[in-house]
Amino acid sequence: MKSAISSLISSRNFNLHRSSLSFSIFRRPSLLLPSQFPVISTDDKATGANFTSLRRKCRFHSTKSSPIMASSFNPEQARSPPAVPLPIPPVTKFKIGLCQLTVTPDKQRNIEHARKAIEEAVGKGAQLVVLPEIWNGPYSNDSFPVYAEDIEAGGDASPSTAMLSEVSRRLKVTIVGGSIAERSGDKLYNACCIFGTDGKLKAKHRKIHLFDIDIPGKITFIESKTLTAGQTPTVVDTEVGRIGIGICYDIRFQELAMIYAARGAHLICYPGAFNMTTGPLHWELLQRARAADNQLYVATCSPARDVGAGYVAWGHSTLVGPFGEVLATTEHDEAIIIAEIDYSLIELRRTNLPLLKQKRGDLYQLVDVERLKSE
Amino acid sequence: MKSAISSLISSRNFNLHRSSLSFSIFRRPSLLLPSQFPVISTDDKATGANFTSLRRKCRFHSTKSSPIMASSFNPEQARSPPAVPLPIPPVTKFKIGLCQLTVTPDKQRNIEHARKAIEEAVGKGAQLVVLPEIWNGPYSNDSFPVYAEDIEAGGDASPSTAMLSEVSRRLKVTIVGGSIAERSGDKLYNACCIFGTDGKLKAKHRKIHLFDIDIPGKITFIESKTLTAGQTPTVVDTEVGRIGIGICYDIRFQELAMIYAARGAHLICYPGAFNMTTGPLHWELLQRARAADNQLYVATCSPARDVGAGYVAWGHSTLVGPFGEVLATTEHDEAIIIAEIDYSLIELRRTNLPLLKQKRGDLYQLVDVERLKSE
Repeated sequence: MKSAISSLISSRNFNLHRSSLSFSIFRRPSLLLPSQFPVISTDDKATGANFTSLRRKCRFHSTKSSPIMASSFNPEQARSPPAVPLPIPPVTKFKIGLCQLTVTPDKQRNIEHARKAIEEAVGKGAQLVVLPEIWNGPYSNDSFPVYAEDIEAGGDASPSTAMLSEVSRRLKVTIVGGSIAERSGDKLYNACCIFGTDGKLKAKHRKIHLFDIDIPGKITFIESKTLTAGQTPTVVDTEVGRIGIGICYDIRFQELAMIYAARGAHLICYPGAFNMTTGPLHWELLQRARAADNQLYVATCSPARDVGAGYVAWGHSTLVGPFGEVLATTEHDEAIIIAEIDYSLIELRRTNLPLLKQKRGDLYQLVDVERLKSE
Repeated sequence: MKSAISSLISSRNFNLHRSSLSFSIFRRPSLLLPSQFPVISTDDKATGANFTSLRRKCRFHSTKSSPIMASSFNPEQARSPPAVPLPIPPVTKFKIGLCQLTVTPDKQRNIEHARKAIEEAVGKGAQLVVLPEIWNGPYSNDSFPVYAEDIEAGGDASPSTAMLSEVSRRLKVTIVGGSIAERSGDKLYNACCIFGTDGKLKAKHRKIHLFDIDIPGKITFIESKTLTAGQTPTVVDTEVGRIGIGICYDIRFQELAMIYAARGAHLICYPGAFNMTTGPLHWELLQRARAADNQLYVATCSPARDVGAGYVAWGHSTLVGPFGEVLATTEHDEAIIIAEIDYSLIELRRTNLPLLKQKRGDLYQLVDVERLKSE
C-alpha cells in the first residue's frame, strides 16, 4: 500500500504541480491523500458532513450500469492533465470573513485598519479572512510605485505583509491578503499573499491578466503601464481547504477558474476592485458563473466605495456557493461579511449535476500548460 | 488574387472545418471571405454599422506601441487551432423572433401552431426565428420515440421539418428550428434543424450533452435512457450571420460556447427547456455568462410553461448581448419575443474589453478536437 501511495504521489499529484511556487500545496502532501481513500475525518464527523457517503453516491453514478456514465466520451480527457480528485479538506464547515475596507492615501492607517478588521472578523468566528485588492493605498498607476513593497525581503521592506504574518500567527487564522503592489527588482506586480495559521507566507499570486480596458467615456485603465503580469496560476492548500487565487481582472478569464477546479480547488478567492461601469455589468455575473460552471465556492473582496477617489470601486464583496447561489453579499459601504462555507455541498452539487462525468473529452480539452509541462 | 483566395480557403477555413456536417458552413464559402478584406457591405452602410472602422480600432490595440498588446503571452495559442477572425456577417442589424410556444400532446396542432407563430414573427419583422426545444410533442422519455421523425428521409417521414422547410422558403426567413426527437436507424436524438431562406436544411445539431441529472425531490431526468448523444459541435453560416447551436443542457458546458466563439460565431442559439428547479437557479446566469465571456450574442427559446405537463418548463426565453446584458426576455406564458440584434456591438465590446488579446496562451489552451483533427 505504501508503495502504491508513493507511486501515486510521484507519478501524479506531485509531478503535476512541481513547477508551482515553492510554497505551494506540496508542502503539505498529506492533504492530497485522503481523497483517495474512504476516510471520514474528525471534522467531517463533527460537522455531520459525510464526504464518504457522498462519494458513494458518486460511485453509483460512475458504475457501468448507471445511465449517467458516458465513458465513451472520455470525460477525463476534457482536462489535460486529467482533473485531480477533489481532496478532502481539513475542515468541512467554517466561517469566512470578507473585509470590504475603506482605503485612504495613509498607508500606516490602512495597515492598522486592516489589522483591526481581521481581528474583528476572527472575533466573529472567521477561520479564513479575505482582504480587498490594493488595500494599502490608492488604486492608480501613480500610486503603485509609491506604495509598493518588497514582499520577499519582508520585515521593514514590507510592513503590509508583516502585519498579515503577525496577525495570522497570533490569531491562528488563514489570510488571503487581498493584494498590494509588489516591488521585485525593477518590476512591479499586483500581488496577493496567502498566510497560514503559523504566520508563514504559503503562496503569492501575481495578477496574471492585467487590467487594460477602454470603454470610452466610462472607464479606461491601463494597468500594464506600470505593472508586470504574473507567470503562474496559484493554488494553495490551507487549513481551510484548497484555494485558487485570482485578482480582479483574472476573474474574466474562465480558463483560470477551470484550471483551478481541475487542480482540486474547493474555493477560488478573487480580491477585486471592479468599477462603477463593469461592477454593475459583470461583477456578480462572473462570480456566479465561475462558481456554477466549476461547482465550487467563489469569494470576492472589494475595497469600499470612495466617490472621491480617482478610481471608484463598486464594492459588493460576495460569497457564492457551488450552485452559483449568492450566499452573502453587501452594498458599497465598508463592511465585514461573515458567512459559512460548507464544502460538503460541493460534492452534493457534483452528484446532482455530474458535469465532470458528462464533459466531452472527445470534442474539447482544456490544457493546463504548467501542469502538462511538469509531467 | 484568385489564387490567394483559393489558398486561403483550402489552407485555413475549409480544412479547419472539413469534418463538419456536409451541410455546414462550407456550402457557402463566400460568406467566409469578406472578413479577410476591408470591405464594407451594402448592409453595413445601410445600417450605419462600420465593421472596417471598428477593425481599425482593434488594429490600434494590436500595434506594438499599444500597452494592451501582450504578445509574449501568446494569446492566439489560448485556442487550438487559433480562433478564426470574426467574419463580417451578411447583415449587421436585424430582428430575431423567439417563439415561446405552448406544446400539447397533439402533434399536428403543435406543427400548425408553430407555423403560425413563425408567420407572426416574420410579420413583425423577424429575419431569424428560433423555436423551443422539443416543440412537436411532450418532453418525456416515453414521448420521444412516439413523436420522433426521420429527418433525413424528410417529407411525410418528418412533417415537423417539412413545415419548417416550407415556411422558411415561403417567407424567406432563417429558422433555428428548436428541436424534435429524431429517429435515425435504431437510434433517437434530440435534434435541432436550421433552415435557410431557400427552405433547405443547412445544418442539424444533435444534442451533445444529454440531460442526466438527479436533484432528489426536485428534478430527476435521465435523457440517455432513450436518446443518443450527438457527435459534433455545429456552427452554420446563415443569411443572418454565423450561428453556433446548442440544445438546453449543452449550455452548461462552457467549452462548447468557447469553441463556437473560436470558430467565429456571432450568435449562439440554445433552444432549451430548463425546469422549475434549474430554471430559476441557472437559466439566465448561463446565458449571460456565455455571452459575456465569449463576447457574442446568445438567444434561448423555451416552451411555454404547462403546469399540468409531466415536465414543467421554466420559460423565460431571452436574448442576451455581447456584454452579457439581457436585451429582451419574457415570463413563462406563451409569447413571441421580437428583438434587435446589432452585430457591430460584438466588435465594439471586443475593443472595449480586448479579452481575446489578453488570454494567456502560455498558461492555458482550449483544444477544439474536431478542428484540430481536420487540420
